[in-house]
Amino acid sequence: MQNIQIILTASSIESGELAGKTAVVIDVLRATSVILTALQNGAKRIRPVQSVQEAIALKSGDNLLGGERNAEKISGFDLGNSPLEYTSARVGGKEIVLTTTNGTLALSRSHQADRVLVAGFLNAAAVAEYLFRSKQPVELICAGTNGEFSLDDFLCAGLIADSLTSEEEMTPNDLVHLAIKTWREAKSDVHQALSACRHYNILKDKGFSEDLDYCLSRDLFRILPVYDPKEGTIRLISC
Amino acid sequence: MQNIQIILTASSIESGELAGKTAVVIDVLRATSVILTALQNGAKRIRPVQSVQEAIALKSGDNLLGGERNAEKISGFDLGNSPLEYTSARVGGKEIVLTTTNGTLALSRSHQADRVLVAGFLNAAAVAEYLFRSKQPVELICAGTNGEFSLDDFLCAGLIADSLTSEEEMTPNDLVHLAIKTWREAKSDVHQALSACRHYNILKDKGFSEDLDYCLSRDLFRILPVYDPKEGTIRLISC
Repeated sequence: MQNIQIILTASSIESGELAGKTAVVIDVLRATSVILTALQNGAKRIRPVQSVQEAIALKSGDNLLGGERNAEKISGFDLGNSPLEYTSARVGGKEIVLTTTNGTLALSRSHQADRVLVAGFLNAAAVAEYLFRSKQPVELICAGTNGEFSLDDFLCAGLIADSLTSEEEMTPNDLVHLAIKTWREAKSDVHQALSACRHYNILKDKGFSEDLDYCLSRDLFRILPVYDPKEGTIRLISC
Repeated sequence: MQNIQIILTASSIESGELAGKTAVVIDVLRATSVILTALQNGAKRIRPVQSVQEAIALKSGDNLLGGERNAEKISGFDLGNSPLEYTSARVGGKEIVLTTTNGTLALSRSHQADRVLVAGFLNAAAVAEYLFRSKQPVELICAGTNGEFSLDDFLCAGLIADSLTSEEEMTPNDLVHLAIKTWREAKSDVHQALSACRHYNILKDKGFSEDLDYCLSRDLFRILPVYDPKEGTIRLISC
């Protein structure tokens, strides 16, 4: 039986609990969807950083600055937090220095895991297959929004957990059980399932409906981005 | 709009986040069900303590020691953690010194709240009505089991939140939204909803099926137990 746990917010990751595990960082709306899209479209690597100042200090001729504060592009940055901006033409061959409110915090706090994968709906099947093959204990980390639980991340965790459990018999803990159940009820219409949710509606109200459609699309890519805390970068490994 | 939040485990209560709020401690299986039953059956007060040693040090001619470790009665104690033991004949007029693994921890960590109520399925309606009248911000605290999320407590939080939101329009956060949705789907058969859950099955396997039936019964009592951290006791207030 594969050991699967879920953490509900980036801020609730406790030091040490990730040792010996594969951590999967999920920030569907929108940081991990941005990372996946940029790498799929040929970005050389992503360098997640916590602060706007850190990002600006790293600016060079070879890289682009991307990210958000309050879901908006940061003044002076090359790119915002809409994955649709991260086209091949824009990001191909470049390093992206990325700072977001929740996703980059979740990555930074996951450094004690044996391996840190980046996941979203866009690559959920590839991640689930990797996890299943690895047999390692798994911690699915929902980044959440400003320290609060966000249902979009939990649904994606449910999808990944559901894919894992369908391949072998297991007894999940109550939180994994709830995530799977919630995902199964939501999957026929994920937009409807999120229609009363806070972050989803903030993005909708700000005019990011196309981002919502895109970030909630399943398995557009078969890629596995891995975060290396020593290097401070995210790169693809082979599936 | 009444502000409602949910905390998923006793161990994740953060100091300070309860100030200015009414905290509602929920440990359905079984600490809060024991407290409710003992007070309903005439116990003078409950004195929750963290350790077995503390409980033994407080033993006197006028009180009874109750509680559990690993769901079993503690050696030398008068009562275990089955609410069915706390009959009028046994507890009437007595103080109960109670130590359990999760429920008494949740109470002790809630001391910064303006008021701490004790809730379970047994008195959910009385608690919801009190909260609605008070208009204060509410923190529903699921005690959980050994630091882990436990679905039984979350269902009870969902029931209370659902009762509050039916009385006025509100926009809950994603976690409250999920709790209400999960409760609504579970309420026609709560045993079925918990049938794959860890703590529920541990109690079932230990022969506590009658306790499960009892603790999951709704609104047997209209009582409001309040924990006073300065006095260190729980007593009833009028509804």
